[in-house]
Amino acid sequence: MAPLAGFLRGIGYKVFTTREPGGTAIGDQVRDILMSMKNTGMNPRTETLLFCAARAQIVSEVIRPHLDKGELVLSDRYADSTLAYQGYGHGNDLEAIRQILSFATGGLKPDLTLLLDVDSETGLNRRKQSGGEWNRLDAYALALHQRVRAGYLEMVCAEPSRWRVIDAGQPPDMVQSALQKAIQAYLSGEKS
Amino acid sequence: MAPLAGFLRGIGYKVFTTREPGGTAIGDQVRDILMSMKNTGMNPRTETLLFCAARAQIVSEVIRPHLDKGELVLSDRYADSTLAYQGYGHGNDLEAIRQILSFATGGLKPDLTLLLDVDSETGLNRRKQSGGEWNRLDAYALALHQRVRAGYLEMVCAEPSRWRVIDAGQPPDMVQSALQKAIQAYLSGEKS
Repeated sequence: MAPLAGFLRGIGYKVFTTREPGGTAIGDQVRDILMSMKNTGMNPRTETLLFCAARAQIVSEVIRPHLDKGELVLSDRYADSTLAYQGYGHGNDLEAIRQILSFATGGLKPDLTLLLDVDSETGLNRRKQSGGEWNRLDAYALALHQRVRAGYLEMVCAEPSRWRVIDAGQPPDMVQSALQKAIQAYLSGEKS
Repeated sequence: MAPLAGFLRGIGYKVFTTREPGGTAIGDQVRDILMSMKNTGMNPRTETLLFCAARAQIVSEVIRPHLDKGELVLSDRYADSTLAYQGYGHGNDLEAIRQILSFATGGLKPDLTLLLDVDSETGLNRRKQSGGEWNRLDAYALALHQRVRAGYLEMVCAEPSRWRVIDAGQPPDMVQSALQKAIQAYLSGEKS
């Protein structure tokens, strides 16, 4: 996310970046519970509510204040990830999750959402090869990751004006270039 | 709760006792976040969702399995405490909280709920004198505790058949005796 934030700062925007779950002292404590490999017995409803708890905190403590100052906020993941993973992935009721998300975010939605799309096998292989820590969520079966991807694509179809799908199977510099073009086109349209 | 469980075992019931938040390995991690005095900046929505997350875990991992074995489950606090504290106390939307509770519990409701009722000043003074650790929730202002109590009493009025109000201003042995009478009367009615 750092190169994209750098690009946006270069063209004159004040940018704040964050990631979920976490991004606050309380959210990081929740993140530890969610990611820990010792918590494999976690119920999918518990998982849903923990993601939403961390999100409620980051929205009120961090995202809202930065938006109120007129900054552009870039977040690595947000509410749609809960719909994708805990809704489509685990098969929880989507409408119930939408209501919980609305409570957690106070109704705050992104203006633009960039989906870095790649087939699930490639995505998981990249995570394994990245050297990053393998967490409880990565360890879900391939079939779940495939339902998650299909869920994202269904959300894109339902609300195409908010989403841009970026082919993440391309080399990294081409992905970066596609991200920059998509967001710059959106921001130009917003100004005009 | 131990004397009440002992009484019920003495009259032939298999009893399982638990407490919220916590009661599972994952729930205890959530409890630590909720109770910690270092987390005073917690947003009320975050607090609501954390209580519900811990509850989703204890319902699926502990309460449901014990009920399925035909046991009587006594829980120190359950969903109504979230309505009382995070709903009536903090002023969050009650209907939104009811929907989240329904998701968290999968719709599991208690057959009988015993409210140990005492005025808020007395309740807080007892907590201070008990020698137990003063936690983030105890530290809320008296006005919040008063709204919580009023919220409980409103719930009692809305659904009187499920609630029994016990005067907790009495000496402990009289409170215990009232609890035993209330629960035994309920259980006799259930059998007949």
